[in-house]
Amino acid sequence: MGQTNAQHREREPSAASYTEMDAIRAPQDLKTLSDDRLKTLAEDIRRETILSVARTGGHLGASLGVVELTVALHAVFDTPEDRLIWDVGHQAYPHKILTGRRDAMDTLRQGGGLSGFTKRTESPYDPFGAGHSSTSISAGLGMAVARDLAGSRREIVCVIGDGAMSAGMAYEAMNNAGDLNSRLIVILNDNDMSIARPTGALSKHLTRLVSSRPYMNAREAAKKLAAALPPPLRRAVGKAEEAARHALHAGTMFEDIGFYYIGPVDGHDLDTLLPVLRNVKNSRRNGPVLIHVITEKGKGYGHAETAADKMHGVTTFDVLTGNQKKSTPAAPAYTKVFANTLIDLARQDEKIIGITAAMPSGTGMDSFGQAFPDRTFDVGIAEQHAVTFAAGLACEGYKPFVAVYSTFLQRAYDQIIHDVALQNLPVRFAIDRAGLVGADGATHAGSFDIASLACLPHMVLMAPSDEAELARMVVTAAAYDDGPLAFRFPRGNGTGVAIPETPEVLEIGKGRVVYKTPANPTRSADKDRRIALLSYGTRLAECLTAAPMLEEKGYAVTVADARFAKPLDTDLIERLARDHAQILTIEEGARGGFGSLVLEHCAARDFLCDCRVRPMTLPDRFQDHDTPDRQYAEAGLTAATIVETIEKSPAI
Amino acid sequence: MGQTNAQHREREPSAASYTEMDAIRAPQDLKTLSDDRLKTLAEDIRRETILSVARTGGHLGASLGVVELTVALHAVFDTPEDRLIWDVGHQAYPHKILTGRRDAMDTLRQGGGLSGFTKRTESPYDPFGAGHSSTSISAGLGMAVARDLAGSRREIVCVIGDGAMSAGMAYEAMNNAGDLNSRLIVILNDNDMSIARPTGALSKHLTRLVSSRPYMNAREAAKKLAAALPPPLRRAVGKAEEAARHALHAGTMFEDIGFYYIGPVDGHDLDTLLPVLRNVKNSRRNGPVLIHVITEKGKGYGHAETAADKMHGVTTFDVLTGNQKKSTPAAPAYTKVFANTLIDLARQDEKIIGITAAMPSGTGMDSFGQAFPDRTFDVGIAEQHAVTFAAGLACEGYKPFVAVYSTFLQRAYDQIIHDVALQNLPVRFAIDRAGLVGADGATHAGSFDIASLACLPHMVLMAPSDEAELARMVVTAAAYDDGPLAFRFPRGNGTGVAIPETPEVLEIGKGRVVYKTPANPTRSADKDRRIALLSYGTRLAECLTAAPMLEEKGYAVTVADARFAKPLDTDLIERLARDHAQILTIEEGARGGFGSLVLEHCAARDFLCDCRVRPMTLPDRFQDHDTPDRQYAEAGLTAATIVETIEKSPAI
Repeated sequence: MGQTNAQHREREPSAASYTEMDAIRAPQDLKTLSDDRLKTLAEDIRRETILSVARTGGHLGASLGVVELTVALHAVFDTPEDRLIWDVGHQAYPHKILTGRRDAMDTLRQGGGLSGFTKRTESPYDPFGAGHSSTSISAGLGMAVARDLAGSRREIVCVIGDGAMSAGMAYEAMNNAGDLNSRLIVILNDNDMSIARPTGALSKHLTRLVSSRPYMNAREAAKKLAAALPPPLRRAVGKAEEAARHALHAGTMFEDIGFYYIGPVDGHDLDTLLPVLRNVKNSRRNGPVLIHVITEKGKGYGHAETAADKMHGVTTFDVLTGNQKKSTPAAPAYTKVFANTLIDLARQDEKIIGITAAMPSGTGMDSFGQAFPDRTFDVGIAEQHAVTFAAGLACEGYKPFVAVYSTFLQRAYDQIIHDVALQNLPVRFAIDRAGLVGADGATHAGSFDIASLACLPHMVLMAPSDEAELARMVVTAAAYDDGPLAFRFPRGNGTGVAIPETPEVLEIGKGRVVYKTPANPTRSADKDRRIALLSYGTRLAECLTAAPMLEEKGYAVTVADARFAKPLDTDLIERLARDHAQILTIEEGARGGFGSLVLEHCAARDFLCDCRVRPMTLPDRFQDHDTPDRQYAEAGLTAATIVETIEKSPAI
Repeated sequence: MGQTNAQHREREPSAASYTEMDAIRAPQDLKTLSDDRLKTLAEDIRRETILSVARTGGHLGASLGVVELTVALHAVFDTPEDRLIWDVGHQAYPHKILTGRRDAMDTLRQGGGLSGFTKRTESPYDPFGAGHSSTSISAGLGMAVARDLAGSRREIVCVIGDGAMSAGMAYEAMNNAGDLNSRLIVILNDNDMSIARPTGALSKHLTRLVSSRPYMNAREAAKKLAAALPPPLRRAVGKAEEAARHALHAGTMFEDIGFYYIGPVDGHDLDTLLPVLRNVKNSRRNGPVLIHVITEKGKGYGHAETAADKMHGVTTFDVLTGNQKKSTPAAPAYTKVFANTLIDLARQDEKIIGITAAMPSGTGMDSFGQAFPDRTFDVGIAEQHAVTFAAGLACEGYKPFVAVYSTFLQRAYDQIIHDVALQNLPVRFAIDRAGLVGADGATHAGSFDIASLACLPHMVLMAPSDEAELARMVVTAAAYDDGPLAFRFPRGNGTGVAIPETPEVLEIGKGRVVYKTPANPTRSADKDRRIALLSYGTRLAECLTAAPMLEEKGYAVTVADARFAKPLDTDLIERLARDHAQILTIEEGARGGFGSLVLEHCAARDFLCDCRVRPMTLPDRFQDHDTPDRQYAEAGLTAATIVETIEKSPAI
């Protein structure tokens, strides 16, 4: 204590000072606080979370919902020796504040600063990194089994939201946990919200559970836990007791698959939370326990509580008004162009269906859904199901568009292969957030879709170079009905080009030349000074910036937009190979994608002696969060690095 | 009827003749049969299934379990207008016999013959192809929604096993189906077996359900369905009625997530099955219905009923004795070498853990589990969970080996990326059934693991050229603890080489030269006649066969075994590039993998003018089932095509 106070006194003054929080250096400092002081601490942390996110932007709503839960968990459990795993991790700001990262909160989601999620390399208090949802029970069960094998006694606590519970992965983990006899504490953080309102039958089940019984108080929880001992007996109960138990409390799905269910518990009431957690900890019961905690997203900040999205992800904002700083973009977001074009098409084509996996606003399926509520399906955090559900629709002659982030499509790789590509079904994948995504960092980067899809037979792959091209590709995707097709586009806003009112259908597998250094009548460039820049996606702008820079250095430059990675425009590639000393390909994806397809084609046709092909891709490492511009500079996918690459190349 | 009988009389005499089955040309012929004649038909079909699989080999046990169910479904529903979707599809032999494919059953799983699974291109009675498990509810729900949108009234029936229900994908689909108001009939075929005995809490839940209540008879089912109308009211029931319902019948997890549950029903008793299905069909109830049908895998064939695996997948066998034809392999199976080596290692290293997703015998985890029951985890059909569970173990210092077929690893792509590679956790992937797999065909081909993993940072990728190399790689995988590592090996038996007693740890990222044409003192070959064959995996044998064939044509040949795709042995590649006119790479995988890595490296180092690099990979199409040898010949990955490729290449 003395040391902590000393540290406290030496601390740099911060923007705000707090009754309890200023004295907290590490979670063990909570052990000495009375329950009343923990309540004050929770209020401090709530205030600090609001002030901090107001300055940096980030995930506010979810963090405000777990302030009391975070305090209670760290007060009761012995982190980091006990493992506390936050599912998704975007609700972990109070946890970061409590675990030695308070002073760094101003660097949140900024280059070199704190991650917006939990991260193993950031803190020993983050035993498992996250970003995608629904991984915590699997990871926790692995740690629980490891604990048992090692003969130690630490606790494993997973905090998972009700939305995340809709993912198959969470169910697989529960099914396994319910079968093993490992002690594991799962806290279901039920705020009836993930990013959007969760859909699905599980959500209704939870609502029924909560509405059918009052909050459990500490005494009831203690009684229930006591009654549960000795645990092996519970499994042996016969039909009569089972029925009686169900008559007393409507059965929960969690009990059906082997969890001991406790709840619902008011997640903002430390007077309940603390004793319930202490009881669970002291029970030393084997097998998995699920504590159903009811919280409110955005709790304690009026502007968040009343916002439709509970201020889920925000830019910097004014604390008094809750008004978020909005820059007026010069050009519409790609997501919006996709959604608007699809809405226009769907007015004339009733076969078009929109599908999202719990990301209606992020993918534009919210506006599509307003226009066509009967043709829009939010299947929950369930990418696997989303894709095969789309395959079923395609079997019956519908035109499903699966609107999904690149990083989340990874969840459905087998379904794309086995249910869509193999059967050559015309499912359209609108892959949003392709390439580097900025503040969300490595977990959310859309790096691998080109490579992982380019090896699949039957796939047509497109990437627009700007928002007008995106509109054309949406129209092309609707028109193409011969098999699966995917188009990828980045996070953020377009380049400001005019979007055609009636976008034309593109010819499948045909690119275009967008720029050519004008012929110089007095001196035509030698072939070894002729360079082709072949872009797949929105790096085309960098190629067009690089062209005059290269011309200044005496190169003649052709800039082409591949439009398609698959099928490749082999005519275009052969023309470029014939007329240029080098083809530099560029894409916003990892190796193995477009550039490697071009290289393989040129190798097969024996072009590579007459024309060098140099693929520029994302580097072979995971890149941390930063602005997209700085991420792409770090990745070496800018005009400057294009010029540098050409200059470094030996003459042919 | 007359026409059908005429067809019957004209039919070629077959090995057996049947009372009822011979008259059946299509499922509509069942409509005119009395229930008693349907029973006779079922016996005919059971006998034909046994005789047929005895001649061809295939999936026997599962098909015998659904004979009555198949007859009942086709008798009650109007296939193919009604959609009947068999999950996995390996239990569909009786369905094939009934739907016009009886005469082709002798071609089952053979080149050009019937697929061992359902397949859209094979029959209009197969509305959705399968092979992997747990896809049927998603596909069926897509078809149900399509039906509703089109305003038609057809039925959608999905038949899914209890093992397949453990997959997250099935849960995602049920969660969505329980939320929508689409009519959908799901038949849970509960035989308490998938390939192995299913594990997991769901399986226990089903056992409790079945043991706690008697089989439902037709009258009870009718009453239950009648009581359920009008359906919208059911959702509005209050707590009291909910509790009463649960007291009457122990609640089922399916009811919790919005299904109307009927069962359990004896799946071999047509006197129950037929009226229950008719009642369900006539109820015209909206929303999803689950009929819990209890069947016995291998039913009606004593040798199958008593076999541990219920004769799940068999070779040709003697009908009287049940004895399967076994060829004595000259060399041990790769799976066995993997398992034995891992067992040896695990005796000295207690950190080694074995993990399988419901494939203990296929992956060798059964024998590992016998040796180390506490360190072996069968997590159910749950690849996503398996991988992140392994990540949790790796966090705590354990050495998990995830033993999985290449084709099923596709289910866990996001978990490999997000939970393992991104966190650089030392999870070992033992990828079995890599490359083409023969009779199981395109759904089970292990084609995409190299390409989809080669784009991931931190991954180490290996492939052994024979079983001795596999043993070395298992040892290497155990010794390498710096990050994720995968090694892939084929289905089938090794080459017969001696397996070292103490396999040595390989240097990461180093290949080896295994053959070099002896120098000819009188005439050293010109560079343009010097060829390097660089193999990744077991095509090395084809390279060694090709070498003398090429030498005969005047080439000097170096054969190298890359051992690693990642990191590449760049020294080896550079030496080969310097000394040879061509490097031909070969691998048992789709494009974008090893060959493309070699090509990219050579492009970056500007070798491609002095040495041509030609990647040989699987072709860009899905290949049908056949023998592996014929599949590889079709793929062009044989010694003959190596020679042909070299001969066709223009001189440098």
